[in-house]
Amino acid sequence: MKGLSASSSKGDDRETGIEDVESLREKSVLLSGAVLDNRLASVGETKTDSHRAKAKWKLKSVVTLALTVLTSSQAILIVWSKRAGKYEYSVTTANFLVETLKCAISLVALARIWKKEGVTEDNQLSTTLDEVIVYPIPAALYLVKNLLQYYIFAYVDAPGYQILKNLNIISTGVLYRIILKKRLSEIQWAAFILLTAGCTTAQLNSNASEEVGSSAHSLESSQDYSIDLGVMALLSGFAGVYTEAIIKKRPSRNINVQNFWLYIFGMGFNAIAILVQDFDAVMNKGFLHGYSPITVLMIFNHALSGIAVSMVMKYADNIVKVYSTSVAMLLTAVVSVYLFGFHLSLAFFLGTTVVSVAIYLHSAGKMQR
Amino acid sequence: MKGLSASSSKGDDRETGIEDVESLREKSVLLSGAVLDNRLASVGETKTDSHRAKAKWKLKSVVTLALTVLTSSQAILIVWSKRAGKYEYSVTTANFLVETLKCAISLVALARIWKKEGVTEDNQLSTTLDEVIVYPIPAALYLVKNLLQYYIFAYVDAPGYQILKNLNIISTGVLYRIILKKRLSEIQWAAFILLTAGCTTAQLNSNASEEVGSSAHSLESSQDYSIDLGVMALLSGFAGVYTEAIIKKRPSRNINVQNFWLYIFGMGFNAIAILVQDFDAVMNKGFLHGYSPITVLMIFNHALSGIAVSMVMKYADNIVKVYSTSVAMLLTAVVSVYLFGFHLSLAFFLGTTVVSVAIYLHSAGKMQR
Repeated sequence: MKGLSASSSKGDDRETGIEDVESLREKSVLLSGAVLDNRLASVGETKTDSHRAKAKWKLKSVVTLALTVLTSSQAILIVWSKRAGKYEYSVTTANFLVETLKCAISLVALARIWKKEGVTEDNQLSTTLDEVIVYPIPAALYLVKNLLQYYIFAYVDAPGYQILKNLNIISTGVLYRIILKKRLSEIQWAAFILLTAGCTTAQLNSNASEEVGSSAHSLESSQDYSIDLGVMALLSGFAGVYTEAIIKKRPSRNINVQNFWLYIFGMGFNAIAILVQDFDAVMNKGFLHGYSPITVLMIFNHALSGIAVSMVMKYADNIVKVYSTSVAMLLTAVVSVYLFGFHLSLAFFLGTTVVSVAIYLHSAGKMQR
Repeated sequence: MKGLSASSSKGDDRETGIEDVESLREKSVLLSGAVLDNRLASVGETKTDSHRAKAKWKLKSVVTLALTVLTSSQAILIVWSKRAGKYEYSVTTANFLVETLKCAISLVALARIWKKEGVTEDNQLSTTLDEVIVYPIPAALYLVKNLLQYYIFAYVDAPGYQILKNLNIISTGVLYRIILKKRLSEIQWAAFILLTAGCTTAQLNSNASEEVGSSAHSLESSQDYSIDLGVMALLSGFAGVYTEAIIKKRPSRNINVQNFWLYIFGMGFNAIAILVQDFDAVMNKGFLHGYSPITVLMIFNHALSGIAVSMVMKYADNIVKVYSTSVAMLLTAVVSVYLFGFHLSLAFFLGTTVVSVAIYLHSAGKMQR
């Protein structure tokens, strides 16, 4: 179970996956998004700016919605898997398969584009050292973060971890400002602080799910690890913002090529993680030991939401990603009421209110800028 | 103890009181405020507008600060009195004495002004039916509210009541808009919603004090009384906004005269409350039965913060009052950590963060307007 928790938390940063039927629909949305982007890039100059802005806005909305839905279904899947029983598989092999699946999906999408529009400079797979040299960095950051997380989980319980993970929100905002040099208005900073406070409030003493519940007690027990958690929040925020910087550096480059290179290095670093963490288990019990149908579902879910995160980085930004995953967290709790008969606490309603106001202020702050 | 709780909650609406030494200092601040106002009104035209605006801003700050300090010390006094033991006095007789004391303080302040500046049309005690006819309305509203509160306390526990009392914040905002026809910007409305959510969050599962703690459980048990509580929130919001309307209707009228007439009717209606609720107890055990030094302190505290509320209505408004009493609630909890060794919960920190952002947004929204 510890394995699944770790996997789920990890998923929150590389966001990924969903159920079978849903996944196919989402997949086609994502792929058509990629096609639309390609079309936009190639036709570009002949279109009016307003038409272009509208298409971009539509694309941004679609990928954001996809990310929200995928992230919520991911958390629901975790609750479901917990209910169904415990699975003793290696998290590292699952992560490796997620990266492999993402690579494969990127290649399939590319193949479709090549068939339709031919190989161009923007969608060719071959690359220069100059382009590819930065791609291992986010993969390495995620690896360090995941290993650190594994260590922290030995001391902090899952609910306490979930609450402290909200520090990512603030670190993402700060790094977004520093690294990408994009300004947030004062109102938008206020909204960001509210988002952090609102998400944490919604997770207080929640009976809604074991993932999103916590207590002051679990926080106290984790105070000694606040440096580790701070480092993790920074690492995870840095990885997100860095990925956005890499993807945005070449706006005309096809997202599927960019994803392919990201995920290739992801595979490499996760292979290292298997050697470090689960070498004995894999050798003795096999690569796929402890896998169940639900594990496979979760791998698909993680892969798809990982792609959705990339899309959001390309067409929107890390700020949108943070809002999207926060809304997903709230959605999960609401859906869990119907699916699992969970109970929503007063804290959840208060947190949801604060998060809603934060979303309003974020857009109000944008207009003001 | 039920008596004291009721008295304290009531106090939150007619805000009042503080400890001995402090009270004298505050009192002189309030009286000099009144003198300053008088001077402003009489010299008026000869002063430059910027000088005038600065003096008005200073006066507004002083009365707001006084209200905040008085309200916090009021809550601390209640905790202290609870620690010291239970007092079995009649709440209605205490309320009557609070009104009487406020009347006396207003008369003393008036006497000083008459001595200094002579009797003018604005500071004379005699009045017209047209001016005085609206004064019984807030007093009557508070009486109904207090009686209703007495009834509700039989069913809802104090912590649950404290949480639901935050509904006053919203009802004050709505009535302020409707009755006083003053506009709040969208950002300011967002700030008001945050203030409500933040105060409620800060009071969740708090170990800080019995006044400001609560649980989802106590809320559930009070669901059947949600209509009563809604009516009470409206009554109390209405009483506050109506008082502001009365006081602001005659800007040049001396506040001490306005207070005198308000409190005269307050005495009258509280005399009725004694007859309705505590007639037997007063007849059998005497008017001052169960009074202790701490009861006397609390009566002084309530009287002074009641006057501070009037001052805030005159020189600022109900919105300022709501923010001021919210900050006082948070201050009380922080001070209680040092005074009584209370423990602040994570919910308290989150609530405080949200309230702080709300205060920032309120002023940011003002500039934007």
